Amino acid sequence: MANLKLQLLTELLKILPEAGIIQDEETLRPYECDGLSIYTEMPLMVVLPDSVEQVQKIIRLCSRLETPIVPRGAGTGLSAGAMPHREGVVVSLAKFNRILSIDADARQARVQPGVRNLAISEAAQEYGLYYAPDPSSQIACSIGGNVAENSGGVHCLKYGLTVHNILALEVVTAEGDILRIGNQGYDSCGFDLLSLYIGSEGLLGIVTEITVKLLPVPETTKVVMATFDRVEKAGDAVKQIIAEGIIPAGLEMMDRLAINAAEDFVHAGYPRDTAAMLLCEIDGMAEEVDEHIARVSAVFNKEKAGCIRVAADENERQRLWKGRKAAFPAIGRISPDYYCMDGTIPRSQLTKVLTTIQSLSDIYQLRVANVFHAGDGNLHPLILFDANVAGELEKTEEFGGKILELCVDAGGCITGEHGVGVEKLLQMPYQFDPASLEQFQRVKLACDPQRILNPGKGIPQLKHCQEYRSLSQASVGRHADK
Amino acid sequence: MANLKLQLLTELLKILPEAGIIQDEETLRPYECDGLSIYTEMPLMVVLPDSVEQVQKIIRLCSRLETPIVPRGAGTGLSAGAMPHREGVVVSLAKFNRILSIDADARQARVQPGVRNLAISEAAQEYGLYYAPDPSSQIACSIGGNVAENSGGVHCLKYGLTVHNILALEVVTAEGDILRIGNQGYDSCGFDLLSLYIGSEGLLGIVTEITVKLLPVPETTKVVMATFDRVEKAGDAVKQIIAEGIIPAGLEMMDRLAINAAEDFVHAGYPRDTAAMLLCEIDGMAEEVDEHIARVSAVFNKEKAGCIRVAADENERQRLWKGRKAAFPAIGRISPDYYCMDGTIPRSQLTKVLTTIQSLSDIYQLRVANVFHAGDGNLHPLILFDANVAGELEKTEEFGGKILELCVDAGGCITGEHGVGVEKLLQMPYQFDPASLEQFQRVKLACDPQRILNPGKGIPQLKHCQEYRSLSQASVGRHADK
Repeated sequence: MANLKLQLLTELLKILPEAGIIQDEETLRPYECDGLSIYTEMPLMVVLPDSVEQVQKIIRLCSRLETPIVPRGAGTGLSAGAMPHREGVVVSLAKFNRILSIDADARQARVQPGVRNLAISEAAQEYGLYYAPDPSSQIACSIGGNVAENSGGVHCLKYGLTVHNILALEVVTAEGDILRIGNQGYDSCGFDLLSLYIGSEGLLGIVTEITVKLLPVPETTKVVMATFDRVEKAGDAVKQIIAEGIIPAGLEMMDRLAINAAEDFVHAGYPRDTAAMLLCEIDGMAEEVDEHIARVSAVFNKEKAGCIRVAADENERQRLWKGRKAAFPAIGRISPDYYCMDGTIPRSQLTKVLTTIQSLSDIYQLRVANVFHAGDGNLHPLILFDANVAGELEKTEEFGGKILELCVDAGGCITGEHGVGVEKLLQMPYQFDPASLEQFQRVKLACDPQRILNPGKGIPQLKHCQEYRSLSQASVGRHADK
Repeated sequence: MANLKLQLLTELLKILPEAGIIQDEETLRPYECDGLSIYTEMPLMVVLPDSVEQVQKIIRLCSRLETPIVPRGAGTGLSAGAMPHREGVVVSLAKFNRILSIDADARQARVQPGVRNLAISEAAQEYGLYYAPDPSSQIACSIGGNVAENSGGVHCLKYGLTVHNILALEVVTAEGDILRIGNQGYDSCGFDLLSLYIGSEGLLGIVTEITVKLLPVPETTKVVMATFDRVEKAGDAVKQIIAEGIIPAGLEMMDRLAINAAEDFVHAGYPRDTAAMLLCEIDGMAEEVDEHIARVSAVFNKEKAGCIRVAADENERQRLWKGRKAAFPAIGRISPDYYCMDGTIPRSQLTKVLTTIQSLSDIYQLRVANVFHAGDGNLHPLILFDANVAGELEKTEEFGGKILELCVDAGGCITGEHGVGVEKLLQMPYQFDPASLEQFQRVKLACDPQRILNPGKGIPQLKHCQEYRSLSQASVGRHADK
């Protein structure tokens, strides 16, 4: 290992300036995990290239030395997709932080992968445009990370996931070649490599440039809040809104625990004594927005909402969203630790799945707060636990795994917007049959025959899926040095 | 060859009843081409399985005998994607013609690939639902063919291409295994195989079951027609409508030649003395539709349209569409032959590209009629020619190739909804650099290591792309027996 590290370093110094290579333990430490800090690992080193040529050379070097590469954006991911490999190099795209061009007429921007999600909308603002997908972490997360995880956000119900908002990619392959994928037309020819690379969690290449779609900032945006004395009623209201043919810009649900934690934290003005709350945002032209808000309010009335409130002005709208946006840290204030799950189910299954999660919460004796994208069925149960209580993290992970299996049983999926990473590897064989897992491996090998790109993430690598099934949850991706 | 045919037949008779195997020349003849009849080839035989198990066995047999397989839907494709292989077997999915289930609450239907596109909407009608993508051939084309070619249609501007309307696939792999891809959730995990298989033109597997999204039939649908004395004005109007934030259900353009041919044929009531005509359809709730129609009409006014007419009732709306829908056969009436091209460009390039096509038309001395999906930049120039005039087909194909290159130069793509098939193989190296073509090959080999699935279609197979570039257009995919 020491030899390999020395050889790597010698060669890397021919590619990068010394300041672009991190190898001392203290400076490496912040890279030991991403946003899912229960999985940690120290890398051999971290490199910070600032040109495509450097990325190509780094990949070719690592290919030659058979050294794993872990690409990293802002490190805000929540499935340990950017957790380092102990015998590998982390390639940080932090220096790829330029917005290369904005074409207001064509409504698109060419950006580097290290650009923050929100920075794109900020730069497009002067043209009356913005980039639609808005993960909660949009202040910090990078567009490259969004592409890797196919990130979502509150507004994805109306505007789609990352995959629906990307026009083209420049990718450096596992052999150091450059692929340019996508075009400005409505369709593409050849196999759909664009969709294949988006959400591939750094397993197929390193993205070095991204062309994103920009949308016109809506003329008007309004939000209506409604509370319900039973979660079922809120679930029915969600179904009813969609059945009406209305596509809200966002349709979010919070349960009692989340509502009260958020209210304690940021005083958003939520009614406390309620089982569930919906926030429904409508955007578009003023008349349409008013009409849709009226129709949504009528649905809420029909579903016997306790309190229905349309934000009177932009201030009140921002305050209502403030509680939703602060919900995760608000939960952090009432519990020593929490674990944010991420799964997707058909909307029709909302009530049933939420009820089962509550039963599991009783069985595991762990509280759960629900804060999620109800409109697209993307659940985010937050399991409250205390890592200092022996066995509680393991119990939490087991509970989390059950929630993901529940999503699969309901006809859904073990990810919504966080990706598989290390976190959900164990559930992949629950989601997919062996033929599908084998197909993933084939695609992986077609793009990365040496398996140097982010090994151990995204897709199970053991030969037989039953090996995975029989593994205990605690033994994968968790390390002695934690 | 005779030996192989005998061996194939002997083995096939163990899998299929005799009626499920076609081998006499007369019955084989209708299979010699698909909708692009300038490319023809006779297969060894055609088989008509009616169960997934039969498909698996056929694929395994062909794999063992290294016999090419050409999957075929309704044979309405326009890029020769279903043209037989002279040493291969055509696998017709015609007997996979059942709608397996409709789940009105979840708004989805499970169907077999041989079901006609329109039959899905007909079956969903009783639930107030329909399947959105509507190729011109929707009366005849099969949903399996739509999946293979990622088909579009008039309404794809608002509702997306096939890839945006499919939830799940069952696919038999090149080794005869079954893959189940996709789920009912909003996101998927693992690599995006669903997008990869959609539009893969039968090169990666044979689809045996499809879960499609269904949408509520819009409350109201209205259409407004406008004529322009210059194509540029029509192009500007298209850009302006989209810039207004309006998403029409359809936004179609026809030029003078197409308008007059259609008018002669079906008497749609189009003004004849005009350079271009737009048909803009708006659907949704009644008030919204009226408002949007008013705003679109205002744009037409601003762009100095000659005649602006909102269809007064459903009868008039149907009549206005009748001309558009009959445009291809209408062109067939005024020319011995025509060749329908298919390419996509950014909307901003509409005027420029149409002008250049007109210049090329003058150079090649071949008339062009334009009838196309203007809203999503999907061009369909129809080149009028006479195959009985020596050299005119070749000149037409050369002209067609130039149009496709023009689409690439404009930042677009050589397909819109027809696929690459045999037709556009020569333009693939113009669209893609060698690294991308190599990546397509790798993905192909990952799924079909023996290359038995639809060989010679979709992606160029020669080792060096320059070999393709240097081929003369007439020498590819054209055969002595034509």
